[in-house]
Amino acid sequence: MVRVAIQGATGYTALELIRLLLRHPQVEITAITSRSETGPIESVHPSLTGRVNVPFTNASPEELAEQADFCFCCLPHKASMDSIPQLLAAGLRIVDLSADYRLNDPGVYEKWYGEVHTDPTRLGSTIYGLPELYRDQIPQADLIANPGCYTSTSILALAPLLKANMIQPDSIIIDAKSGVSGAGRSLKLTTIYSECNESMAAYGVGTHRHTPEIEQILSDASGSDVNVIFTPHLTPMDRGIFATTYADPIGDITAEQAMETLREHYANEPFIRVVDHLPKTKDVAWTNFCDITVRMVRGKLMILAVLDNLLKGAAGVAVQNFNLMLDFDETTALM
Amino acid sequence: MVRVAIQGATGYTALELIRLLLRHPQVEITAITSRSETGPIESVHPSLTGRVNVPFTNASPEELAEQADFCFCCLPHKASMDSIPQLLAAGLRIVDLSADYRLNDPGVYEKWYGEVHTDPTRLGSTIYGLPELYRDQIPQADLIANPGCYTSTSILALAPLLKANMIQPDSIIIDAKSGVSGAGRSLKLTTIYSECNESMAAYGVGTHRHTPEIEQILSDASGSDVNVIFTPHLTPMDRGIFATTYADPIGDITAEQAMETLREHYANEPFIRVVDHLPKTKDVAWTNFCDITVRMVRGKLMILAVLDNLLKGAAGVAVQNFNLMLDFDETTALM
Amino acid sequence: MVRVAIQGATGYTALELIRLLLRHPQVEITAITSRSETGPIESVHPSLTGRVNVPFTNASPEELAEQADFCFCCLPHKASMDSIPQLLAAGLRIVDLSADYRLNDPGVYEKWYGEVHTDPTRLGSTIYGLPELYRDQIPQADLIANPGCYTSTSILALAPLLKANMIQPDSIIIDAKSGVSGAGRSLKLTTIYSECNESMAAYGVGTHRHTPEIEQILSDASGSDVNVIFTPHLTPMDRGIFATTYADPIGDITAEQAMETLREHYANEPFIRVVDHLPKTKDVAWTNFCDITVRMVRGKLMILAVLDNLLKGAAGVAVQNFNLMLDFDETTALM
Amino acid sequence: MVRVAIQGATGYTALELIRLLLRHPQVEITAITSRSETGPIESVHPSLTGRVNVPFTNASPEELAEQADFCFCCLPHKASMDSIPQLLAAGLRIVDLSADYRLNDPGVYEKWYGEVHTDPTRLGSTIYGLPELYRDQIPQADLIANPGCYTSTSILALAPLLKANMIQPDSIIIDAKSGVSGAGRSLKLTTIYSECNESMAAYGVGTHRHTPEIEQILSDASGSDVNVIFTPHLTPMDRGIFATTYADPIGDITAEQAMETLREHYANEPFIRVVDHLPKTKDVAWTNFCDITVRMVRGKLMILAVLDNLLKGAAGVAVQNFNLMLDFDETTALM
Repeated sequence: MVRVAIQGATGYTALELIRLLLRHPQVEITAITSRSETGPIESVHPSLTGRVNVPFTNASPEELAEQADFCFCCLPHKASMDSIPQLLAAGLRIVDLSADYRLNDPGVYEKWYGEVHTDPTRLGSTIYGLPELYRDQIPQADLIANPGCYTSTSILALAPLLKANMIQPDSIIIDAKSGVSGAGRSLKLTTIYSECNESMAAYGVGTHRHTPEIEQILSDASGSDVNVIFTPHLTPMDRGIFATTYADPIGDITAEQAMETLREHYANEPFIRVVDHLPKTKDVAWTNFCDITVRMVRGKLMILAVLDNLLKGAAGVAVQNFNLMLDFDETTALM
Repeated sequence: MVRVAIQGATGYTALELIRLLLRHPQVEITAITSRSETGPIESVHPSLTGRVNVPFTNASPEELAEQADFCFCCLPHKASMDSIPQLLAAGLRIVDLSADYRLNDPGVYEKWYGEVHTDPTRLGSTIYGLPELYRDQIPQADLIANPGCYTSTSILALAPLLKANMIQPDSIIIDAKSGVSGAGRSLKLTTIYSECNESMAAYGVGTHRHTPEIEQILSDASGSDVNVIFTPHLTPMDRGIFATTYADPIGDITAEQAMETLREHYANEPFIRVVDHLPKTKDVAWTNFCDITVRMVRGKLMILAVLDNLLKGAAGVAVQNFNLMLDFDETTALM
Repeated sequence: MVRVAIQGATGYTALELIRLLLRHPQVEITAITSRSETGPIESVHPSLTGRVNVPFTNASPEELAEQADFCFCCLPHKASMDSIPQLLAAGLRIVDLSADYRLNDPGVYEKWYGEVHTDPTRLGSTIYGLPELYRDQIPQADLIANPGCYTSTSILALAPLLKANMIQPDSIIIDAKSGVSGAGRSLKLTTIYSECNESMAAYGVGTHRHTPEIEQILSDASGSDVNVIFTPHLTPMDRGIFATTYADPIGDITAEQAMETLREHYANEPFIRVVDHLPKTKDVAWTNFCDITVRMVRGKLMILAVLDNLLKGAAGVAVQNFNLMLDFDETTALM
Repeated sequence: MVRVAIQGATGYTALELIRLLLRHPQVEITAITSRSETGPIESVHPSLTGRVNVPFTNASPEELAEQADFCFCCLPHKASMDSIPQLLAAGLRIVDLSADYRLNDPGVYEKWYGEVHTDPTRLGSTIYGLPELYRDQIPQADLIANPGCYTSTSILALAPLLKANMIQPDSIIIDAKSGVSGAGRSLKLTTIYSECNESMAAYGVGTHRHTPEIEQILSDASGSDVNVIFTPHLTPMDRGIFATTYADPIGDITAEQAMETLREHYANEPFIRVVDHLPKTKDVAWTNFCDITVRMVRGKLMILAVLDNLLKGAAGVAVQNFNLMLDFDETTALM
């Protein structure tokens, strides 16, 4: 049994993570931390009533390292980079679900997150936890930067086609629609029910923080600089991301050829389904799957991808990374 | 033209009120106040962009009285009773949408609202603004206490049958379901989208503040003490209240007789529709109507009523009261 | 491995069942049938793409019996009683998710379902598959009548208190609210999105078919005739049932005593959680849990219960029954 | 008073239209027709209970012409072109809300609608009822082709910039998101609640019938051939369209210059609001407004537009056309 701690367990991502880990036959949850809460987990997450027998604590990194072998860090960005060096020093292996270790360049981090990075030497060497791209490097890592939800959807749709040199790297538009859980469990007027129910809205147009993350990974896949136009939209539903991506094909590429490239690239991937039909977010809600299809419209290649932002976009891929790091079957607790 | 001020105009009720008043041919909106906002109205209510040409101010009662003849007070309870005596003294006529002047007894107010009432002499003499019950007294009033949303739904369903001595006053259960807008435009964890979307929940069981208001008005209608069991539920929709009420019939009353009593009682009411079919909240959403029907199930009389909590349950009936006070056609701006 | 067939696999209950069975380590799905479909399962349920490797067939009972050891019957009522005698004769053990074998009395069946029962001798002897009441009789049964969703919610809330003689059997009101998935995957104007979204509606007032089922099981628990007033409401959400039940306490019973009785009764039940807080449907959505609490309001005992209509209300309890019949751990595939 | 008939009054567009016309001081509704219904209007639209005192009839064009001066035709395409020549011959003036008279070329109609047009001589000469583009030609017309909902949103966003030669005509992508009411009041598995609630889905990718309509009007505005990539998405909400459009700017155009061009173009338009903030569909729900803003992201011009598909996208603009045809104030019944 692996003794697992969840740091920062009051949010929706942590809730999903705990739900998954309770299904994992090799996991014992030995600690959950919160900076604000102290009671039993059901005081915050009533759906977990009776299921987790450790209370919220404000354990120090050293205490956590005594209680656990592995830590999922669900703190917000900034708090995460304050904590993770100590957790690593104490000997814990970690999947970090914040954005703090995803970007390679401290300058880019500072520009988009408005904070000086306080652990810059780990940037660039931390493994980006998207198994479909970086599976080989995950098992031996001590720290994994778990990807953003919009990021995973976009990359899974586009990376294989960039790698195969089938789409123009400078032509990419990502029009993405996300359920409201992506905004987290926090008090913001924009996400109270009466504001966002029965409403569709774009936000962060040209300024969303997943942009540099998408560009970094796609550039890595492409071998050349990729800049994207990324437009997130808030959609009145709990969970799900729908990414409608547009790109110029290179040469005489057809939709069928692009589909075939995706099928080959993901042939052994347990969670990627390249489908003929138009997918919808409900097809993958509450699962770790990402469904992808391709269409050609008036000479533009469209790749459409869906996943559950809390699972394949956050807690699900975190468990997938954990499984790879601990040499468990990759799908354990995820099917 | 009546010059109208709206005090406390940042909430959903005020938004609805302004939307209605913009349709009223005899109304000019001359002032909107806020304790926190100072900009144009669209900074808070983008749906009103370009429609109201006065900015938020923090005008004093005296200033308001110079700018307006009539004031709709949309402040929260407590703030309302601090303001209204001054507004009245300055010569304004008022519909108060808060709970501060609805109850007759300062002791009951203190018990349910946890505040000592600071204007107790007006309690008991302020007219309760439910036109279907108190139409005669509304025109000459200077201050109207606008009813609560759950209250109106419950009273419109039950009062005529209590008056007609058709149901046992001590047998009433009101199981009510409300859309989330009833919770107002405020930051509460319970009303963020991800908490209440796709969820049904009872709340305030046995403790909701509309209980004494319902009982006071039903007792008045009945001529005897009425105690009710009132259970509100938060329903994942924007607007609408569905009240499922249960009561023991007196004697051999049939559902048809109860329907007939309701039909007669509301025969001249422009906004009450006694219907044969089972109503749903969508039938009355965005309208000032209240639809009511009756069923008998295993000897229990059930009266089912629906209305839009923001309109017939708040801003709509406020305009109805305004029309009666100013001797306009009662339906002006409401059809 | 148990070879399992699902008969009538195009609906939502079957979809949930398959999703659960794919997690069951002792189950192999060997057949899925449909009277209308013939293709792969993803043609109807895209969420199952790549997960079930048998296509829809219209297999006869004999063919099914060759392919499978156990059958979950998800046909609509009437179709179910046409099929089940043959399936039993062919040697299959069965959980029937229709209403056809739930009622003891063919006359009651005929009255509420408008059909003459064609397999009346099995009525009365078929075990009602609510493990919390009939666990002892389930393992040895060949046919289990899986309970209705409203029924389970109501019974789990009320049966222990009737057994304990704490509530008056003739005083029960069940005001229940269900998500729309309870209406099934069929074309009805009342359940198209634009009709039921953003709307709350009562339906089947006094006439819903779960009424006699609730009464039969509660009468069995009580030892005396129980008649209930049961009012279902259609709530704008996918899944979940909220039952607000009202009953007169016997003697000086307190809410705490009723809670204690429920806690004792369900002490060893893995899926019933008696909670102090007011539960909401989201607490149990996508789980097999039923959360229950008690309140006393003005002398009336209120028992509030929530469950997921597709899981604990249908497919989840079906798997629970299956586990009991096959002597697997009762919670397998359900946590 | 103008006597008005509504032909084909069972759908959501007709319901909205009637709701608006009941507010119109110069309108008397004298006839409503249906091919299937015969009772009072509340049998289909309970929200109109007590409000319309003519029943559904299957009146012939001649009978309609005796009863009414003006007809809103809400029939589906194909049925509309069967009926309209007769209505015109009988002397009625008409706003047709179907697609039958929107396209100029019978060949294009046949290609996209799969029907030979049976009234081809009127194609090309029928006025397209988008007042913001064709206001001058509307008053004297006897037949107006009311625009499609996606079409209006797209055109209002793009036409002024094409006219001003600010965007490349061959670079346009329209990624549009619509509420479910756009699918109409008809039985389709894809629009039952349990399929589309909590789900985001693209549909009709590259094949949606509003494509040629958008292209025809934009080509007219541009003076050159415009081809667009148009991607509609079904969004889990009742009403609203959000169009996210992308286009290459011509020369050194800035977002501010594009905004200024839109502001000037729409300076006297009562229903178009060019706004600085990012609009959301809820800002315009239940109104006849269209809110538009512009952003520049990485060299791409983005124009974002929202409207209510049932109002500014259908029934609202129909009344706007009616007002122009009858020389009433354009905003009558629409504010």
